[in-house]
Amino acid sequence: MPVGTRATVKTLSPLDLEKVGAQIILGNTYHLYLRPGDDLISKAGGLHNFMSWKRPILTDSGGFQVMSLRGLRKITPEGVRFQSHIDGSYHFFTPEKVMEIQNKIGADIIMSFDECPPFPATRKYVEDSLQLTLDWAARGKKAHKYPEEQALFGIVQGGIYPDLRCKSAEKLMEMDFPGYAIGGLAVGEDKQDLLKITELLHGLLPEDKPRYLMGVGTPSDLLDNIDNGIDMFDCVMPTRNARKGTLFTAKGKLIIKAARYREDFRPVDNDCSCYTCRNFSRAYLRHLFSVDELLGMQLASIHSLHFYLDLMKRSREAILADQYEEFKHKNLPGLDEILDD
Amino acid sequence: MPVGTRATVKTLSPLDLEKVGAQIILGNTYHLYLRPGDDLISKAGGLHNFMSWKRPILTDSGGFQVMSLRGLRKITPEGVRFQSHIDGSYHFFTPEKVMEIQNKIGADIIMSFDECPPFPATRKYVEDSLQLTLDWAARGKKAHKYPEEQALFGIVQGGIYPDLRCKSAEKLMEMDFPGYAIGGLAVGEDKQDLLKITELLHGLLPEDKPRYLMGVGTPSDLLDNIDNGIDMFDCVMPTRNARKGTLFTAKGKLIIKAARYREDFRPVDNDCSCYTCRNFSRAYLRHLFSVDELLGMQLASIHSLHFYLDLMKRSREAILADQYEEFKHKNLPGLDEILDD
Repeated sequence: MPVGTRATVKTLSPLDLEKVGAQIILGNTYHLYLRPGDDLISKAGGLHNFMSWKRPILTDSGGFQVMSLRGLRKITPEGVRFQSHIDGSYHFFTPEKVMEIQNKIGADIIMSFDECPPFPATRKYVEDSLQLTLDWAARGKKAHKYPEEQALFGIVQGGIYPDLRCKSAEKLMEMDFPGYAIGGLAVGEDKQDLLKITELLHGLLPEDKPRYLMGVGTPSDLLDNIDNGIDMFDCVMPTRNARKGTLFTAKGKLIIKAARYREDFRPVDNDCSCYTCRNFSRAYLRHLFSVDELLGMQLASIHSLHFYLDLMKRSREAILADQYEEFKHKNLPGLDEILDD
Repeated sequence: MPVGTRATVKTLSPLDLEKVGAQIILGNTYHLYLRPGDDLISKAGGLHNFMSWKRPILTDSGGFQVMSLRGLRKITPEGVRFQSHIDGSYHFFTPEKVMEIQNKIGADIIMSFDECPPFPATRKYVEDSLQLTLDWAARGKKAHKYPEEQALFGIVQGGIYPDLRCKSAEKLMEMDFPGYAIGGLAVGEDKQDLLKITELLHGLLPEDKPRYLMGVGTPSDLLDNIDNGIDMFDCVMPTRNARKGTLFTAKGKLIIKAARYREDFRPVDNDCSCYTCRNFSRAYLRHLFSVDELLGMQLASIHSLHFYLDLMKRSREAILADQYEEFKHKNLPGLDEILDD
């Protein structure tokens, strides 16, 4: 899922997004609540109407953003009191409030309000935090007004403690959510620790419901976690890196500002069928970045999103053909390296 | 002609430009010469290839930009020595050099190197400057390598002095250019003074060759100067103003950041068929500008260019139907005012 924090995937129009093959995008509840506000979005007929995006949308719960406001927030069993990063104004998120906001925003998939523990965190901290998140999940589920229209996912927490992750998954499954997210990872732990958790949950979470690994990751992270049964991902990496001039390709990351590309009239990736690769050279993209022209960020975002989404499309096809292992081992080498071509 | 200074019309892709109806765009010789350089563009197969724009391109001569470098340039009969505004490096533009650069860039229409006198300027200054520009026009014409592929226009100068403008036009017509530009206007003089000059030249310049008024202007400027026989315009106004949140409409200028548009779910212009007006509300655009999302600048640019180009299209149709006066008087009222709706 491309990330559209503030009712737009940065630099791209909905038409661009359809063309790169986006089937669903993510919006951030915390940001949308602050600006333009959930009331305004509701008056506009919901986020789909407001931003003119006809395909599915998922909103996160704001839990991760609020927890990132170190020093600006206070957690109680009732909820989280926090100050806006924009103007310092005070706000209070409870599971019920977050559900009300997400009901107003009107995404197709919405998330339970959770506490996302920092990394590293003591076992005691994570255990207490997990209990809070489970209570909040139950309260949110109860407060959810449109369960037929909006699928509410539970979020598995528990840090890097396998038994806590198991407990979290089991308790959430008892509540019977239509889908399960795995939160609190990709926050600083080793990749191997992350993979241990998703592997563990692979054996626990129901096979017939979607599993969403939040905030992950690099192309190789995606391929490895698909192996562990993950169905959905979101990450700012393709778009954020693109805006800074790093483009993902099947052969590695291309640093477009490098001097070597000054007179390189080949496309970013010869085998790519995106608008950028069909029409523009590395030299042209490098020029746009050199003179700070915004079209550079757009063309880079189009390419990298197309690459990510195409990698997922081909993964699905490989799974259906029962050839995923082969596909993964063929595609992994060099994926996270700097392109040398 | 939308202005694409550095091989891109800011924030828009070639596809966006085709969709708003751009038939020809402008590139700036001075900027392209400095970055990425005419040699690089030539190696890329010319500007069309480099920026992937298949329709016509016009390049200016750099005269206007170089003259704007007050204190950084020195004019001699041979040419202009100047310092780059980017790194202070020294360069020398002569009519021959500018022709060589434009030959390499490869636009369909190219311009003679001219001196664009400041405003105000004494009659003596403008008279001397005009002689220089005429000499340079002859030298440039002689140096032009591809007259069959690239149409070289002469530039009428002469400030606001009618007799000098006449002399300029007559001398250029003797040299027989395939088209004539009118330069040195829209630099600070009254609109009435500008219109007097274009009216005067209307009676002088050949009817069967295109007339291009450089750097003009507002929508009403265009309608008034079409009346004076102008065929072509270029101006950064639609795109630059759009990026700052001012959109042109048939009913006036819409300042999108205004508080009144916060909950205005109507399109920018109900009667407009551009991508922006067909898909997004004023409230959404205002939100994008409020949170500094680049999509706001893109959607505003798309709308305003579509408006300008549609106004020109309808002007052509009115001329062909012999109803231009009626068309102009119907469309002028309020065009330059702030929209109050």
